[in-house]
Amino acid sequence: MGKEIPTRSEDYSLWYNELVKKADLAEHSDVRGCMVIKPYGYAIWEKMQQALDTMFKNTGHVNAYFPLFVPKSMFEAEEKNAEGFAKECAIVTHYRLKSDPHNMGKLIVDPDARLEEELVVRPTSEAIIWNTYKKWIQSYRDLPLLINQWANVVRWEMRTRLFLRTSEFLWQEGHTAHATQEEAVRETEQMLDIYAEFVERFMGVPVVKGRKSEGERFPGAVETYCIEAMMQDGKSLQAGTSHFLGQNFAQAFDVKFANKDGTLDYVWGTSWGVSTRLIGALIMAHSDDDGLVLPPKLAPIHIVIIPIFRNGEELKKVSEAVDPIMKSLRAQGYAIRFDDRDTQKPGFKFAEWELKGVPVRLAIGPRDLDKATIEVARRDTKAKETRPLAGIADEIPKLLDDIQKNMFEKALKFRENLTTEANSFDEFKSILDGKTGFVSAHWDGTIETEIAIKDETKATIRCIPLDSKKEKGVCIYSGRPSEQRVLFARAY
Amino acid sequence: MGKEIPTRSEDYSLWYNELVKKADLAEHSDVRGCMVIKPYGYAIWEKMQQALDTMFKNTGHVNAYFPLFVPKSMFEAEEKNAEGFAKECAIVTHYRLKSDPHNMGKLIVDPDARLEEELVVRPTSEAIIWNTYKKWIQSYRDLPLLINQWANVVRWEMRTRLFLRTSEFLWQEGHTAHATQEEAVRETEQMLDIYAEFVERFMGVPVVKGRKSEGERFPGAVETYCIEAMMQDGKSLQAGTSHFLGQNFAQAFDVKFANKDGTLDYVWGTSWGVSTRLIGALIMAHSDDDGLVLPPKLAPIHIVIIPIFRNGEELKKVSEAVDPIMKSLRAQGYAIRFDDRDTQKPGFKFAEWELKGVPVRLAIGPRDLDKATIEVARRDTKAKETRPLAGIADEIPKLLDDIQKNMFEKALKFRENLTTEANSFDEFKSILDGKTGFVSAHWDGTIETEIAIKDETKATIRCIPLDSKKEKGVCIYSGRPSEQRVLFARAY
Repeated sequence: MGKEIPTRSEDYSLWYNELVKKADLAEHSDVRGCMVIKPYGYAIWEKMQQALDTMFKNTGHVNAYFPLFVPKSMFEAEEKNAEGFAKECAIVTHYRLKSDPHNMGKLIVDPDARLEEELVVRPTSEAIIWNTYKKWIQSYRDLPLLINQWANVVRWEMRTRLFLRTSEFLWQEGHTAHATQEEAVRETEQMLDIYAEFVERFMGVPVVKGRKSEGERFPGAVETYCIEAMMQDGKSLQAGTSHFLGQNFAQAFDVKFANKDGTLDYVWGTSWGVSTRLIGALIMAHSDDDGLVLPPKLAPIHIVIIPIFRNGEELKKVSEAVDPIMKSLRAQGYAIRFDDRDTQKPGFKFAEWELKGVPVRLAIGPRDLDKATIEVARRDTKAKETRPLAGIADEIPKLLDDIQKNMFEKALKFRENLTTEANSFDEFKSILDGKTGFVSAHWDGTIETEIAIKDETKATIRCIPLDSKKEKGVCIYSGRPSEQRVLFARAY
Repeated sequence: MGKEIPTRSEDYSLWYNELVKKADLAEHSDVRGCMVIKPYGYAIWEKMQQALDTMFKNTGHVNAYFPLFVPKSMFEAEEKNAEGFAKECAIVTHYRLKSDPHNMGKLIVDPDARLEEELVVRPTSEAIIWNTYKKWIQSYRDLPLLINQWANVVRWEMRTRLFLRTSEFLWQEGHTAHATQEEAVRETEQMLDIYAEFVERFMGVPVVKGRKSEGERFPGAVETYCIEAMMQDGKSLQAGTSHFLGQNFAQAFDVKFANKDGTLDYVWGTSWGVSTRLIGALIMAHSDDDGLVLPPKLAPIHIVIIPIFRNGEELKKVSEAVDPIMKSLRAQGYAIRFDDRDTQKPGFKFAEWELKGVPVRLAIGPRDLDKATIEVARRDTKAKETRPLAGIADEIPKLLDDIQKNMFEKALKFRENLTTEANSFDEFKSILDGKTGFVSAHWDGTIETEIAIKDETKATIRCIPLDSKKEKGVCIYSGRPSEQRVLFARAY
């Protein structure tokens, strides 16, 4: 079918790139660093948005929209944040083109239309949002503010990878303001829990929840929490972050509120986000050498039905037999594709829908009709069996639930097998170069050691897991004392 | 309550601006020309998106996402389109900031990070999308392509008005590609019909469907269809456009397909869009001097319930009485706010929810409980009546349907009263300066006359109505022969 992709063991990175393109999820555009999200990929994003948006709203958040552009002077107000993003900002300097006097039909930037102040295309929206919150917050009665935004952001990238790292990407960014530190910390933790629940329950990908080390912290945050997921090559992928901002942005933008007792205090903030990067994680966690493996909860098509027929009459009989099944499943909210193209053979269709990761495939022809059976194939295990046609519409939902559960359990087992404790730097390096995966090891807590380990091994501290128990030990690199193990890995 | 707004008759324009701000829909940001869409305004946009997106999908369209930036050379490929938007384009010229060596803590644009080719922030996406379609279309089997995008766009504006005209706005843009002219024209017309249905059925605003004159056509289109709605000041607002692009973009981007007989031909295109401008139309078509009047189908809150109480015990009794009503209405999909704040008096709450345009208000206190009654007020007519508490949950949905219907009929009657035929230029001018509204008049079909009329009266040809009958006459301005009347108005 001309859709062959390399296997994961041949070249994991090429497998990923080719799969994203061949499965019609996304492609590179002719705009440097920017991707086109194709309809099939965008349909997955819509499903993600819907699930997350519902979870945000159920916890009291509302959506709003803030400007794409941030004036440079506003952008630089929170210095650490500005410094952190300065090197990857797209800058608007002019607001008009004009005809090129030397080149008919061509346009040039009009030098007379230079902006007095340059505009930064938002790499993240803390600056513009806290500048706005200043006008919205006067008293404790105005708090908490629990706002989310679905938007595009731009972070200039020299080396891009579809979904994982592009100059423009789509995301949601929550920005909340609170009267007390405790409430802001609780919000930060709550959103981390929501992200973890979404990634595990909808994407079927287990995550480790933790705090980032100082070196990996969001610029301008007091504390960054994250969820880390393991990909099939043993690398880690940061799937979402939730930041406790302290009073940093409130101070930078002078956002104060009157407490119940009338005293003025700076507001406490959080911000949190996940992006289209999650689609990359979804692919790399589950898919196989035949193509995508999509979890039912996020699959744009749940079931594909492939009629086996040699002529119109046979097709008609098969159609009549599956029609009530389709009606019943659609009424239960499942998306079904009936692939009755007569331009392609069943084998081609099987391969195509495997590539697209449709969780369940049904195939039925005249011989099945005679026996009142249908062939049921599941994408995750590739198991096939022939089942009675009667009652199949009631069995499919159970099968889909089982696929969702199985995908999570398989990924969890995979991660557990590839999570190893290391007690010396030699052991640490041999794990990273051998079986790979997550390495749990003692660290002395300094940024110097973190950098030294990264320079030597390309592994970074993915997080200080929230559930890790206190355990006295010595840093694998410096030999200095340590209070608990942290999680290292090479990462996307 | 400090939320007073001027009346429409005092100052329609100021009434609109103040209403948008006081009702918490949107506000100007500190970024020149850009607005902040506040949660209550964004909730209306989400309802619009949901309804439109469903209509698009039901007619076979899928969503995708294309880059925010368009390289200048790609942008200028379709010359008319480029020329039409050149004067309002935000241009990215650099991709990095750096520390200002002369000013600690400040940033400057890094002169070493100048882009080889400038990027235009998309004012519309035909260029980037047709550049992509070139790769997606080889044969008639790849057609039609029916794609929609929800996105932000930027058109630099010197004079802005909330929702109606801002430098950045949110919209959807459909871009379709077809094998034949007939099919593309049918698509253009179908999308116009969908827009008309949405604006009439959801927004409760009647529209005139028509074609634009050459002077008002979308740059790069062969034909532009539009829907025009009348605002309460008699001005027209273009609520949506659907463009038949002919083969213009296919030629500019060399998008050809192999026909069934193997011959190569250029693809036929359409594009169509509506934007957050619709929120402005919604406000100006229905709202009154007390605030917003929202149609139930787009209201973020359908029903507000205001308990009348002097103490906690009374509140408890009222709450218990309305609890089953709320449960029943929520189960039917209605959004309800129970406003039991003890910091505000009922009168304040009444005024606040009137300002916010909530379609139905229920008020209930101890005396109502004694009589087993409840006060029901509708926002559109401001009619109030006391009804039996029993069965109220079944009556509200009917009342909401009636409000939706009544709002449309009122707006339709208003428009009919302000649509006048003019048979001389004097008559034409006196209508525009007197009763205002839509003026139906003969026009000679030339752009010169159109411009002359605009210069003298500020009225433009809003459209050549699709349903207008052929009628011989003479142009009100030039006296030359005309085949049919067209619709003139001053417009937003």
